[in-house]
Amino acid sequence: MTQTLSPEFLDALKDTLGPQGWSEDPDVLSEHAQAWRGVLQGETPIVAKPGSTEEAAALVKLCSQHGVAICPQGGNTGLVDAGVPHGEICVSMRRMNKVRSVDVFNNSMVVEAGAPLVTAQQAAEDVNRLFPLSLGSEGTATIGGLISTNAGGVAVLRYGMMRDLLLGMEVVLPSGEIWDGLSGLRKNNTGYDLKHLFAGAEGTLGLVTAATLKMFPKVQRATAWVTVESTQNVIALLAHVREMAGDTVTSFEMIPANAVDMVLADIEGTRDPLPSNLAWRVLMEVSFSDEAMARKTLETALETAFEKGLIQDAAIAESLAQAKAMWMVRETIPLSKRAYGNSLNQDISVPVSKIPAFMDTCNARIVDKLPTADFVIFGHVGDGNLHYSVIEAPGKTGLKENFNALTRIIYDTVMEFDGSISAEHGVGRLKRDELAKLRPQAATDTMRAIKKALDPKGIMNPNRVVSV
Amino acid sequence: MTQTLSPEFLDALKDTLGPQGWSEDPDVLSEHAQAWRGVLQGETPIVAKPGSTEEAAALVKLCSQHGVAICPQGGNTGLVDAGVPHGEICVSMRRMNKVRSVDVFNNSMVVEAGAPLVTAQQAAEDVNRLFPLSLGSEGTATIGGLISTNAGGVAVLRYGMMRDLLLGMEVVLPSGEIWDGLSGLRKNNTGYDLKHLFAGAEGTLGLVTAATLKMFPKVQRATAWVTVESTQNVIALLAHVREMAGDTVTSFEMIPANAVDMVLADIEGTRDPLPSNLAWRVLMEVSFSDEAMARKTLETALETAFEKGLIQDAAIAESLAQAKAMWMVRETIPLSKRAYGNSLNQDISVPVSKIPAFMDTCNARIVDKLPTADFVIFGHVGDGNLHYSVIEAPGKTGLKENFNALTRIIYDTVMEFDGSISAEHGVGRLKRDELAKLRPQAATDTMRAIKKALDPKGIMNPNRVVSV
Repeated sequence: MTQTLSPEFLDALKDTLGPQGWSEDPDVLSEHAQAWRGVLQGETPIVAKPGSTEEAAALVKLCSQHGVAICPQGGNTGLVDAGVPHGEICVSMRRMNKVRSVDVFNNSMVVEAGAPLVTAQQAAEDVNRLFPLSLGSEGTATIGGLISTNAGGVAVLRYGMMRDLLLGMEVVLPSGEIWDGLSGLRKNNTGYDLKHLFAGAEGTLGLVTAATLKMFPKVQRATAWVTVESTQNVIALLAHVREMAGDTVTSFEMIPANAVDMVLADIEGTRDPLPSNLAWRVLMEVSFSDEAMARKTLETALETAFEKGLIQDAAIAESLAQAKAMWMVRETIPLSKRAYGNSLNQDISVPVSKIPAFMDTCNARIVDKLPTADFVIFGHVGDGNLHYSVIEAPGKTGLKENFNALTRIIYDTVMEFDGSISAEHGVGRLKRDELAKLRPQAATDTMRAIKKALDPKGIMNPNRVVSV
Repeated sequence: MTQTLSPEFLDALKDTLGPQGWSEDPDVLSEHAQAWRGVLQGETPIVAKPGSTEEAAALVKLCSQHGVAICPQGGNTGLVDAGVPHGEICVSMRRMNKVRSVDVFNNSMVVEAGAPLVTAQQAAEDVNRLFPLSLGSEGTATIGGLISTNAGGVAVLRYGMMRDLLLGMEVVLPSGEIWDGLSGLRKNNTGYDLKHLFAGAEGTLGLVTAATLKMFPKVQRATAWVTVESTQNVIALLAHVREMAGDTVTSFEMIPANAVDMVLADIEGTRDPLPSNLAWRVLMEVSFSDEAMARKTLETALETAFEKGLIQDAAIAESLAQAKAMWMVRETIPLSKRAYGNSLNQDISVPVSKIPAFMDTCNARIVDKLPTADFVIFGHVGDGNLHYSVIEAPGKTGLKENFNALTRIIYDTVMEFDGSISAEHGVGRLKRDELAKLRPQAATDTMRAIKKALDPKGIMNPNRVVSV
């Protein structure tokens, strides 16, 4: 239900932010109050667009005084209903989109929350450095949103999640106070590490306004597409290439044969890099400062993997164009899956060692419930992160009717294998209640205590992550 | 002041932990109530030694019920007076010293809090993996203590601090509840990241009983000792070798010429790897799965550094013994400094790019106050972390008398250069009040709110990190 805002509050808000800083235009409200082209539908009485940290702080202070709830929003590409307002005022951070500073010798840069990921990538590139976070929505997803959801992507194996790429942070606390923690320090043991609390908190503990991000030396990539017989061999291959190539292994993506078929059928301009009857493909990248060394490392790792019987065949990209073509197959799987028919999609993780057993067990249970079910299971297997989809061929039925029961099977099996039902997408409103059941009670109690202590009025993105 | 414990509490404690689980022997109490051979002197009425997580939980619950304060203790090698009891009961974790499990394919292991660091290193080594944390006290410092202080060491540049090496954690909360967060997941976005809150909290938010640690592929090292003219060139050299060798640069230690002289004079069996009139040395390591490639990468980086005029000369270790001899010079600096005379020692960090300017400014201010002052400034320059010591030759005076004033100069200059007065050693009791002054008020307020919310009775290591 949309909050009723007093005229005093509205006047003060408009005064604080100036004419460019707010909108009550129904089209603008509607744009900010939905996601996934309307699948997720919320509502908001006003969109506030602070242009500076000071304006954001004044806004939050005003909301605190009037007990008005806030839903912070970045690029609005989230998948768990955390950043769509449900009656709260929508605070869009997209006007705060500057790179404030770049420090080459410190390998760090200060970027505002509303800047899209590509802006940070480009700023690093401009000084011959790398900002390694990379994911499909990088043109739209903002730094603040990526921090608040602790985003993952395709280079986590080597560089970690978004929280691992942070050196500092600037946050407007629920009181309206500004915490300036934009330190570019790599070592700073001076109390509880607050940035790690705000990272992944989905805006429930404060409004992230800027961050100090790590930059890395630039690397050259060597890319290979490999055919593999079984998930057991996929896991063994991962261990093998990491033994041979160490942490130069940047990406390790598992792709099922049927996903390749779907992509080839649906997506124009794609081709199979290495046709094969085997059930699995791995797309992997080794990256190093020197291109020849990256390639030699990859070749040696694959040759020995072949000798050990871990792979059947491998194609190494001979050019950037070939590497891009391989990645295109991987990256268009979600698109092609959508074209294929109904699907039930989960973002889950289990310990890497348990992936084969988890998949065997979970798939069998699903088929037991719905014999016509088929699967597309792909993902960042180096992180134990699977995008697990139950699909249904056009013409078949039963998936929609069994949606809840099948979801239950997946969740329970994930927990049985010590996994997580939200690997990289987060909690939001979508998984809040389910996670309250699945998480250890002591963890949920601790999260509630933190939320109450830091946001006693409950104005920051209420009802996401934990209910209080 | 030592707490007065009721006979009921003491009986219940002894009952809970059994005869091996406690001691009131004055020698044992004295051993646990001091550090640095008595320089840090505390007191405790009883040492409790839980043998399992369940015993630890029962103990904390009992303390919560009776309002008895706890000082958790690991290897007692801390430097900021966090782990020495000052009247609290001392909870020594050293009986909980097992490696519970090792998962090679997941590259993880579960280790109890009281196990010394070498135990974790060895457990990884046994399965051909690496646990990369390494520091001088690794035979004594425990996993729980290393987590609670978020320890650093010589490989932070490549592998991060202790918090970066954690996948999961088991903690007894101040209520006595056990939080089992020992997940070995690499991706798990299911709420606030509690492990990052307990890491570095110095036992003030809960009692860490075990942790899931990351393992890494084993690496071969190539080690070089380099002579450099200025701190500016040291920083430029760091940027250069990272551009050339990427993140295979594992260590990058800056050493002043006078420290080498002191070590050679004081420590038997040391020799100068590369005599030179220049003011600075850098000890650096490149590590990679393949030894020849590690060496070639290091050589290429140093050759081009020479061409660019960044270094004067370089010696590459031809054997493990030569590498060890180079590291011995670095590692015995603290020892030799102690033999030299009076010294004022600070563990500080500044952004890497500001190291030269910080040192110029701070040294000048110190000499202005105490013209006879000399300096030994060395450390993990790749992390911006300097062990900054003001020293005084035997026979000279003034350092002791000016101790507070000089400390003030260092602290103020560090803050002026956006640095931290505790890079890797922590807060404890020693720096609590100073940090409450230097930290942004919003950060201290937030820390206090967290402490009060999670430990409302204030029994967990009170008066460390923040006062409430």
